Amino acid sequence: MYTVHKLALVLLVSYQAVAQMPQRQPTPNDTLKSPRILDDKRAVISVYAPKASEVVVSGDFQKQYKPLSLTKNDQGVWSVVTDPLKPDYYTYTLTVDGVRTMDPKNPIIKQGISSLENVMTIPGPETAFEDNITVPHGEVREVWYQSQSLGMMRRMHVYTPPGYEKGTTKYPVFYLLHGAGDDDSGWNSIGRAGFILDNLLAANKAKPMIVVMPNGSMPMNLTPGSNMNQVMSDMRTRFSNELLKDVMPTVEKTYRTLTNRENRAIAGLSMGGFQTLDVTLSHPELFNYVGVFSSGFFGNTIDEADTKYAKALQDPSFNKNKKVFWIEIGKDDFVMDANKKTIALLDKHKIKYQYKETDGGHTWVNWRQYLHEYAPLLFQ
Amino acid sequence: MYTVHKLALVLLVSYQAVAQMPQRQPTPNDTLKSPRILDDKRAVISVYAPKASEVVVSGDFQKQYKPLSLTKNDQGVWSVVTDPLKPDYYTYTLTVDGVRTMDPKNPIIKQGISSLENVMTIPGPETAFEDNITVPHGEVREVWYQSQSLGMMRRMHVYTPPGYEKGTTKYPVFYLLHGAGDDDSGWNSIGRAGFILDNLLAANKAKPMIVVMPNGSMPMNLTPGSNMNQVMSDMRTRFSNELLKDVMPTVEKTYRTLTNRENRAIAGLSMGGFQTLDVTLSHPELFNYVGVFSSGFFGNTIDEADTKYAKALQDPSFNKNKKVFWIEIGKDDFVMDANKKTIALLDKHKIKYQYKETDGGHTWVNWRQYLHEYAPLLFQ
Repeated sequence: MYTVHKLALVLLVSYQAVAQMPQRQPTPNDTLKSPRILDDKRAVISVYAPKASEVVVSGDFQKQYKPLSLTKNDQGVWSVVTDPLKPDYYTYTLTVDGVRTMDPKNPIIKQGISSLENVMTIPGPETAFEDNITVPHGEVREVWYQSQSLGMMRRMHVYTPPGYEKGTTKYPVFYLLHGAGDDDSGWNSIGRAGFILDNLLAANKAKPMIVVMPNGSMPMNLTPGSNMNQVMSDMRTRFSNELLKDVMPTVEKTYRTLTNRENRAIAGLSMGGFQTLDVTLSHPELFNYVGVFSSGFFGNTIDEADTKYAKALQDPSFNKNKKVFWIEIGKDDFVMDANKKTIALLDKHKIKYQYKETDGGHTWVNWRQYLHEYAPLLFQ
Repeated sequence: MYTVHKLALVLLVSYQAVAQMPQRQPTPNDTLKSPRILDDKRAVISVYAPKASEVVVSGDFQKQYKPLSLTKNDQGVWSVVTDPLKPDYYTYTLTVDGVRTMDPKNPIIKQGISSLENVMTIPGPETAFEDNITVPHGEVREVWYQSQSLGMMRRMHVYTPPGYEKGTTKYPVFYLLHGAGDDDSGWNSIGRAGFILDNLLAANKAKPMIVVMPNGSMPMNLTPGSNMNQVMSDMRTRFSNELLKDVMPTVEKTYRTLTNRENRAIAGLSMGGFQTLDVTLSHPELFNYVGVFSSGFFGNTIDEADTKYAKALQDPSFNKNKKVFWIEIGKDDFVMDANKKTIALLDKHKIKYQYKETDGGHTWVNWRQYLHEYAPLLFQ
């Protein structure tokens, strides 16, 4: 009865109602906290599951998401202690006897289109760039619009910088794309894009800009028999139509935007990086700043890229109109092969880009860092 | 391998990577859907938990949140079929062998400050007032500000009506407060406040207004030995300071607002209704429109209310400055006693109000309806 939740409940009911609630024996669950972060930056993840026979946790705090087994104490509480972790925001998921389980003691989650993950914070000075601190904050807006190309209501998140509301100036626009499985809320929640921009702006390390985070997950009719090449091709076409015919016109009509190529940037992670490559090579006239995080031409899309994008790849003025073409990936990323093949294609056509390999894999730990490195390069 | 999640994954990886993934036997979980809504408006809630010995579900679709037991089939899938439900949005939570479990097949959730619940939709014409349809939409903004009274960064959600971004007119402001256990995102997510306002405005049934949804959950040092009277008193004071000294000045400084009492409204549910009563009777000069949903002076706060609020209660001009004083509650609400005692206090002092009892209890099903009834009364 003494958890925050129960006390919150007490605040809203009359004492009489509380007195009428069924009494029960206290359990170890009542005072359990999870995760607990130890002074040495190890995390203790726990769940009260006295009847379970196997509990594991997986998350991006482990290389390749390698699952860890929890062990049960005589109170029925399962726990595991992680290695010391670099201060950052991590995701994890418990599996209790085969059932995917959100940590009942941790309400902080990452929202996906088909599943959730828990989020834990290891505090430390390393997170200063992405923390919510007392600097001026921009606003992040949930914007619903009627997508003509998809025939449905769609949502995007739009970051407007501090001072936008009371100002009159026009701003450059940065289109920032999430990965598969996420939606338009991802970059602002687990990606902490708003805080990263706020902190860069407060330190005068980036230009004030509008950041548009569209929903890149396209409605697709996927079945076990779906031809994956066709699916990739359809997804790419749908996204490109949606971005060019709906998202960009809506943004440029609604907000005080600068609408020439010099004032438009794009970047995306994983699926969003693939979408970024496709839009950039299909419409090289749109964006002078391009960022590709942990991505490349996946699967057989690399095989057709040379012909599909021949016009842009062979255009001698392509390089001149890209002030930044930034490609970044972690050494352990499982899409490294697609990344390497994509770079080889660009090299073949003497497309100029900046390339950086970091530690780590296909995780938000890297993508927040990449945003923090890329955003200062824009519109300078 | 054929769930949407796994197919989304396929979209982002190279075929080579997929080919290297460990193969496993398919399970009934791969194709399981939960919840499924039947044609007769019953919901089937299911979870694959072959090792579990007891699975129950509770939610606001059941009177008094009465838990339902799921039964296991020979595939290890537990299921239960609800009664036919009135089309609406409902919350539910599974408990698998005593472990609170988010439905692994349903990523749609209600976010609380200390816990999550799943959300399911029973579709039908009854939800038209709260659905996301092709009418002009306002924007909902996440707004971070430095709270001087609480000494921390705080967030509020702010709804600006369609046309706000490109217009120059000033708008009346409606402060809309959530209940205990929720945060400032509650009214816009599970409360569907943005869509309810959008639909009212499209039908010309409400005046365009800004709706401010602050975080009413105050940081409190609660311990098992906390004196609940003191906690209630502290919470009330903190909220009132935060609203008057931080939220309202921030809103009136940032947005194009009308700032006289005739253009200010307030309403809240449960804890937020208690906060509404407190602010209204402590500062009767602020709001001409007051709404109290499923609430009252809880616990012993009713005993002191007559003296604490004597000045307002005994002020003969109090009624004249309240264009709307709206009190609404469900017949089965467990805070009915506090509600009745509060009404008796108002009656004793000849405070005028409109009172309505509906079916149902202490649930969002009612609160969305109450907002839909109350918002059209404002600023007319």
